Amino acid sequence: MAVLVVGSTAFDTVETPFGRREKCLGGSATYFSLAARLFTKVRMVSVVGEDFPDEHHELLVANGVDIEGLETKAGKTFSWEGRYSADMNSRETIDVQLNTFGDFEPKLPDSYKSTEFIFLANGAPATQASVLDQIEGSPFSVADTMDLWIDIAKDDLMALLPRLDGLILNDEEAKMLTGESNLIRAGRKVLELGPKLVIVKKGEHGSFLFSNYFQYALPAYPTDKVMDPTGAGDSFAGGFMGFLAECESLSLWNMKRAMAYGTVCASLNVEGFGVEPLAGATRDDLERRYRDLIQFVSV
Amino acid sequence: MAVLVVGSTAFDTVETPFGRREKCLGGSATYFSLAARLFTKVRMVSVVGEDFPDEHHELLVANGVDIEGLETKAGKTFSWEGRYSADMNSRETIDVQLNTFGDFEPKLPDSYKSTEFIFLANGAPATQASVLDQIEGSPFSVADTMDLWIDIAKDDLMALLPRLDGLILNDEEAKMLTGESNLIRAGRKVLELGPKLVIVKKGEHGSFLFSNYFQYALPAYPTDKVMDPTGAGDSFAGGFMGFLAECESLSLWNMKRAMAYGTVCASLNVEGFGVEPLAGATRDDLERRYRDLIQFVSV
Repeated sequence: MAVLVVGSTAFDTVETPFGRREKCLGGSATYFSLAARLFTKVRMVSVVGEDFPDEHHELLVANGVDIEGLETKAGKTFSWEGRYSADMNSRETIDVQLNTFGDFEPKLPDSYKSTEFIFLANGAPATQASVLDQIEGSPFSVADTMDLWIDIAKDDLMALLPRLDGLILNDEEAKMLTGESNLIRAGRKVLELGPKLVIVKKGEHGSFLFSNYFQYALPAYPTDKVMDPTGAGDSFAGGFMGFLAECESLSLWNMKRAMAYGTVCASLNVEGFGVEPLAGATRDDLERRYRDLIQFVSV
Repeated sequence: MAVLVVGSTAFDTVETPFGRREKCLGGSATYFSLAARLFTKVRMVSVVGEDFPDEHHELLVANGVDIEGLETKAGKTFSWEGRYSADMNSRETIDVQLNTFGDFEPKLPDSYKSTEFIFLANGAPATQASVLDQIEGSPFSVADTMDLWIDIAKDDLMALLPRLDGLILNDEEAKMLTGESNLIRAGRKVLELGPKLVIVKKGEHGSFLFSNYFQYALPAYPTDKVMDPTGAGDSFAGGFMGFLAECESLSLWNMKRAMAYGTVCASLNVEGFGVEPLAGATRDDLERRYRDLIQFVSV
């Protein structure tokens, strides 16, 4: 089955201890799509400005991403500039220009409305909810969020959570959302807010999956060269959702495998700059890495 | 087979968000012994002062710990006072009085000298080496270390490492010892310094095992109430070494199981103050927790 993503497309300028790249293709919908397309058909809803070059459109299409939902509006494309710390575990935002993404009102093409797997990348919870309003049927819907929305749009977020099958967030966000300093308690408390599944990402420390029926912990892939962590979370989500959409089953076993594929996509992504590693990857690359990961974590 | 531990016995005064305990039984050899005794016979080499009360001797003996190697010297027992942060992930040392532990020169009773599993708890590398000098035969020897020794006794530590089968240290120490900011690379580099096995502890994020033949990652037990993290590392080592000594096999499969038992001992330990949880635990308690952990991490 296909998977639909709604999120940002951006120009990223990134500096890490390994170098600097200016005005590269980035954004949550881009990273998600380039990971998920390794598993299944991807439909992308996003917005760019008139300065978005043809070569980026072409890269997405060449990677099999359906960009009927990628709108071009008058003005400039969302741009972000950031710098990572020496150990890559924190980053500083140097500049953000929302531009055309600032008043993004996602509109789903008719051909997208019956998609059965939906990922709402990080965005205003009210905007994320507006996507669910346009959907026909009862898709498997997962959203990402961030500290900003917990801060300034908590009511909207609280209204969205019971409408979701899954929420993906990082450890600090789970603690912030619940006021719990213990991450296991925080994860369980997020469940009480409505989503049936909660995935807590811990970066180099892996991820947790919480549901009312089971808990699962998966270490990260043992990556020994992190060049650029940008997009790791969205690549994870792309692998997770892409695999589930491909296998069309939401069993515990497939949830665990989906987390492992998400982990593998994220690890591949961070080993090079920008979207380069994902755009060049094949399913065979993923499968090799998947087998390594399973060996690394099997008891 | 029996396991021998050489380390400290102390009076701990601890403050955590859950309360304060004064002058409790503590020390690396104590925590190690109370975990390892759940698997096999434990021989303890340590030192206390004349103020060490009979009830502490009795607690150790009642838990099956052989304390022939626990020396009583003129003076006071080593004492430590610390306070944990709200999230328990860092602690501040408020007071340390080395007392009789300050010039500890471990002397192994003759009955201990042929022990085949040896744990050198955190201490000066030269002191740790002096224990190996007293041993007959070729035991499976594992040591702990800390940032202090990397700082002030690096040459001694470097001389010790090739004599060890295993080194246990935490993530920050592995990075400090090797100058690597990536933990996977750091773990592999510690291997190059001599030990055949390296275990890197990451607290709530679990642990890594590195050898020249395999790598393994194990998440921590999903503890939802950490009351007092003191002794977690030594409890981990006690479970790890105790299990290996019990099963007398160093296969990959048993190494993984030993890490899981170490994880389980550490989790039990942190759920109450001081040595209370371990001193009251049974093997059944551990086995239940072991099964939970395996379920939590099985792919």
